[in-house]
Amino acid sequence: MTTPQYSVAVGDVEIDDEFWTPWIRRNRTETIEYQYDQLEESGALENFRRAAAGREGGFQGMWFQDSDAYKWLEAASYELAKADDPGLRERVDEVIDLIAGAQREDGYVNTYFQLVEPDKQWTNLNMLHELYCGGHLIEAAVAHYQATGERSLLDVGVGFADHVDDVFGDEVDGVPGHEEIELALIKLYRVTGEDRYLDRARYFVDLRGHDDRLAWEFDHLDEVAGHEYSDGDAAEGAEVVFTDDDGEYDGSYAQAHAPVREQDTVEGHSVRAMYLFAAVTDLVDETGDEELWAAMERLWENMTTKRMYVTGGIGPEHEHEGFTEDYDLPNETAYAETCAAIGSIFWNQRLLEHTGEAKYADLVERTLYNGFLAGVGLDGKRFFYVNPLASSGDHHRKGWFTCACCPPNAARLFASLGQYCYSTRDGELYVDQFVGSTLETTVDGVDVTVEQSSSLPWTGDVTLAIDAEGPVPVNVRVPEWATDATVTVDGEDADVDGAGFVRLAREWDGETVEVTLERETELIAAHPAVEDDVGRVAVERAPLVYAAEAVDNDRPLHQYAVPSDADAEATHEPSLLEGVTTLDVDATVPDLDGWDGSLYRPASETASEEAALTLVPYYAWDNREAGDMQVWHRSDLS
Amino acid sequence: MTTPQYSVAVGDVEIDDEFWTPWIRRNRTETIEYQYDQLEESGALENFRRAAAGREGGFQGMWFQDSDAYKWLEAASYELAKADDPGLRERVDEVIDLIAGAQREDGYVNTYFQLVEPDKQWTNLNMLHELYCGGHLIEAAVAHYQATGERSLLDVGVGFADHVDDVFGDEVDGVPGHEEIELALIKLYRVTGEDRYLDRARYFVDLRGHDDRLAWEFDHLDEVAGHEYSDGDAAEGAEVVFTDDDGEYDGSYAQAHAPVREQDTVEGHSVRAMYLFAAVTDLVDETGDEELWAAMERLWENMTTKRMYVTGGIGPEHEHEGFTEDYDLPNETAYAETCAAIGSIFWNQRLLEHTGEAKYADLVERTLYNGFLAGVGLDGKRFFYVNPLASSGDHHRKGWFTCACCPPNAARLFASLGQYCYSTRDGELYVDQFVGSTLETTVDGVDVTVEQSSSLPWTGDVTLAIDAEGPVPVNVRVPEWATDATVTVDGEDADVDGAGFVRLAREWDGETVEVTLERETELIAAHPAVEDDVGRVAVERAPLVYAAEAVDNDRPLHQYAVPSDADAEATHEPSLLEGVTTLDVDATVPDLDGWDGSLYRPASETASEEAALTLVPYYAWDNREAGDMQVWHRSDLS
Repeated sequence: MTTPQYSVAVGDVEIDDEFWTPWIRRNRTETIEYQYDQLEESGALENFRRAAAGREGGFQGMWFQDSDAYKWLEAASYELAKADDPGLRERVDEVIDLIAGAQREDGYVNTYFQLVEPDKQWTNLNMLHELYCGGHLIEAAVAHYQATGERSLLDVGVGFADHVDDVFGDEVDGVPGHEEIELALIKLYRVTGEDRYLDRARYFVDLRGHDDRLAWEFDHLDEVAGHEYSDGDAAEGAEVVFTDDDGEYDGSYAQAHAPVREQDTVEGHSVRAMYLFAAVTDLVDETGDEELWAAMERLWENMTTKRMYVTGGIGPEHEHEGFTEDYDLPNETAYAETCAAIGSIFWNQRLLEHTGEAKYADLVERTLYNGFLAGVGLDGKRFFYVNPLASSGDHHRKGWFTCACCPPNAARLFASLGQYCYSTRDGELYVDQFVGSTLETTVDGVDVTVEQSSSLPWTGDVTLAIDAEGPVPVNVRVPEWATDATVTVDGEDADVDGAGFVRLAREWDGETVEVTLERETELIAAHPAVEDDVGRVAVERAPLVYAAEAVDNDRPLHQYAVPSDADAEATHEPSLLEGVTTLDVDATVPDLDGWDGSLYRPASETASEEAALTLVPYYAWDNREAGDMQVWHRSDLS
Repeated sequence: MTTPQYSVAVGDVEIDDEFWTPWIRRNRTETIEYQYDQLEESGALENFRRAAAGREGGFQGMWFQDSDAYKWLEAASYELAKADDPGLRERVDEVIDLIAGAQREDGYVNTYFQLVEPDKQWTNLNMLHELYCGGHLIEAAVAHYQATGERSLLDVGVGFADHVDDVFGDEVDGVPGHEEIELALIKLYRVTGEDRYLDRARYFVDLRGHDDRLAWEFDHLDEVAGHEYSDGDAAEGAEVVFTDDDGEYDGSYAQAHAPVREQDTVEGHSVRAMYLFAAVTDLVDETGDEELWAAMERLWENMTTKRMYVTGGIGPEHEHEGFTEDYDLPNETAYAETCAAIGSIFWNQRLLEHTGEAKYADLVERTLYNGFLAGVGLDGKRFFYVNPLASSGDHHRKGWFTCACCPPNAARLFASLGQYCYSTRDGELYVDQFVGSTLETTVDGVDVTVEQSSSLPWTGDVTLAIDAEGPVPVNVRVPEWATDATVTVDGEDADVDGAGFVRLAREWDGETVEVTLERETELIAAHPAVEDDVGRVAVERAPLVYAAEAVDNDRPLHQYAVPSDADAEATHEPSLLEGVTTLDVDATVPDLDGWDGSLYRPASETASEEAALTLVPYYAWDNREAGDMQVWHRSDLS
């Protein structure tokens, strides 16, 4: 069994797309290279060397630094899955050797504990990320095995998983403060066929919210690991993030406030929530647990209708890096962590593949082009951890972070993007995302080839040339944003009934499917309960959300008002920001005549004049001269 | 010579006004009583006792705690000036005895230095407030002398002033980081006729911006006083407030970035700026210095046309408690310290009396009814230090502050309010503010009596019954906000030519002057450069600025949009908030139908419905159930 993370393997898809290929190339040539250097510079590799040598102390970095190496291995493995690369393979093998060398005979590996607090393993599940790091080890192990067929890292992952399976439910009962092990164990189950990994994932999912260990640790902070770690007091950190407004313990930070199957609202640290829900969706897919599925549907509904930015970004609040209340979506102080957007893509892709419902692919698309993509600079070297929807000009991407979770997370998403373009389900093929690419896969044993070309995101023309050795139905997504859509097979119209998948059930012998997706520049309003957006409009030219930057506009951005029926002119500018379509939207600005020497005047005496507000895709902001940015513009909405 | 602070003495005016009398009564029965208790509780009096006993150490409170006692004495003296009160007089005398006992033979008195750092006097002019405390001592001394004719406190003030005059320009050259001594010395000059106090005030004004001592102290923080004071490191505090964005010394916090006569913009700590400009205006009044006067006019222009809230509040920024840049007037994060509003009233009253120009009285009025009055709760026991123009419901008045400058400053303003109602100039009387009151004064030796009744701020009907023993012209102010105004003398119309003083030159034998000021509820816009206010309107019903509070409105305040031509209905509600006129302004709110289950929708599909936004006077906010508050409402302005 070598079921990939999703139903199509990374190696089955070769992307060749005008929009995405440069991102993926920069990811390979800049990000992955740079991150390898960082593993050495940050001490991540040295930590493994010291652990392998049986030394004590000298640990460098945050206590979850091991995960940087694992995420890099996962991203590098996806690259190896797509094309061999002897140089990269050699470095991958070196890093695997270090990790294997550091692993104890009982399977445990975590250089923080091995070097700093060897007698305090599993004492601080809340904050010390042992299971989180182990989960990333397993994800890397699965990716490496599927890419290369080699068991070098898989054996390390299996050793760790077996150790966890031995310890938990026996010596220790508890759930991790940061979810990740759950989805990793299900991946391991899928690649090994060993039921105990699925059972252990279910144990962690089911125990969450019933378990009182997190609360116990909170009350015994001086007994648990990480109390005096110099790079940040991990134990004390719990006092901040695990308390409610009254200073009482509150498990919602780690989605441990209630059993998952009883949860109604997305709560707490948003990356943790997404990783948990991804695992739960996998679990539902494996077990058919209807109660858990009902929870997934409730939580998705809550997130998408009350707690999500128009970019697909999630988690508005800085201190908890997470969710707050319904409709609390501030723009300038938005957190909307890049990793949370990635986590949302992970979850939604699983929801899509579990249900075959296009709405999940729509959200993957929205998040991919906006909330996620803004996290990475056009140079592939600088990253946003935090993605505000408005800026006064002092928020900029940085090369790296002390808590370096986002850059390697972005790397593994870019490197595996092909997995999100297609999926298979019940013997049918789904074209989920419109990305120029070649798919060679099997659907229920039938070889299928798809050659896709796509003009997205700038225009909506997609061509698919399909070959199959048997009658595999192909489902093509019509996004919710398409104002009109036609799908033809060798020139013959197929039935299109609004948004959703159009099912083309036939034999395939090189037929050409043409998909034409119409869309207009659209002005969007937010629910009136969203205080920051009330009376304002955002501008979309699907799948892109647009933003205004000071560099493109004469007046300060706050002076522009965009009428709700404003016209917009789109212009493709191949030399701007690596090639973008800009929008000039009809707007008004205050007439400055008459204001001379006045600070306050009767409103009835003021006037306005016409102006155009120039917008660029949100993902492209902060790649030029620094200045104000805003997604939501003043309008005439009441 | 006993020239009062302004041209009319506190004791010459007896206020009997439906609006103001309750405030003044609460000030007398609550605030002044409470503050006396606080002097004991905070250790302020104990500091004097210890210093009088020649003890060392044991100092309590902030290093400028002495000034609380002086400000209380000043307020209490104003009460004694208006009516004798044996109990209050006794306590005043006790406090004066303590201060006199603590004063050294050479005239120096400052309990922080006497108890804590006796060898470091005058080493930290930036931050240690010796001259500031001394200035308040002198103000109290002058007020007490004028109220009672007794020299007990005046002698202490004179002793301190003489000591300062001996030391400065000789042993020490420098200016205080917090201005106050300057205006106090001019008051002392006016009451004693001693030129050296005026000259010393001029020395401090002229040296500011030329002096490099503040910068020297900044570079020698470990040599100056206050370095390790336990209640706050006063020396280190300088590193925060006296540095620019690059961490370099910047004197603008104390208006020491340039000579006063060269300054063009109001800068730095706003209370300091107001106290300085008040002194400079006095100096101009005494000396006719045209260059300094030109600076006053420039600075007033800059403040009122670019750096002032619609409430008259000033100083938007928290860290420096002061001014920032033109048009930087955020609402929710406004600082707008109550003391700064009071300082602005001090300055503007002096400008008014120097020029006879009504625009300064207009601003005194705006600030009095709004930016200042909001600083005091309707119970007279709770105070705002900070006066935002929008709140999310978590900003509330408090009983006292560690840095307790605002409550006693409010107390001395309420207690001396009569001084702001009338002024005299060149043998003429001015009716500056419309406050029911009896004035008995002399104008160039001629006895004049005015009986005023006023319906402000709720309606604009004022009656003045005037008697004079000679032909004293009476000037009655027509405020800039009056849309129409009539002034009659015994029923005969006087000429009214827009805003400004209407001069009534005649003999007075009990004639009745009727002033009728028309005004409408008016929607005000702010200059488009004010980011927080763009597209918004504030509502005034002069002289009051109005605010919306959650408690009066069904929808969250952000959902209301007030069209720029909205009608408003005024209703006087005698039992609400001690009696206020409320406004119901025509507005719209989003139609919530159609939003069910949606977070984002095409703007063109949204709709609105009619609603009324209920407003109360800004000064009255936060006296009921906590909730959102806003002064600037969404509108349809472009």
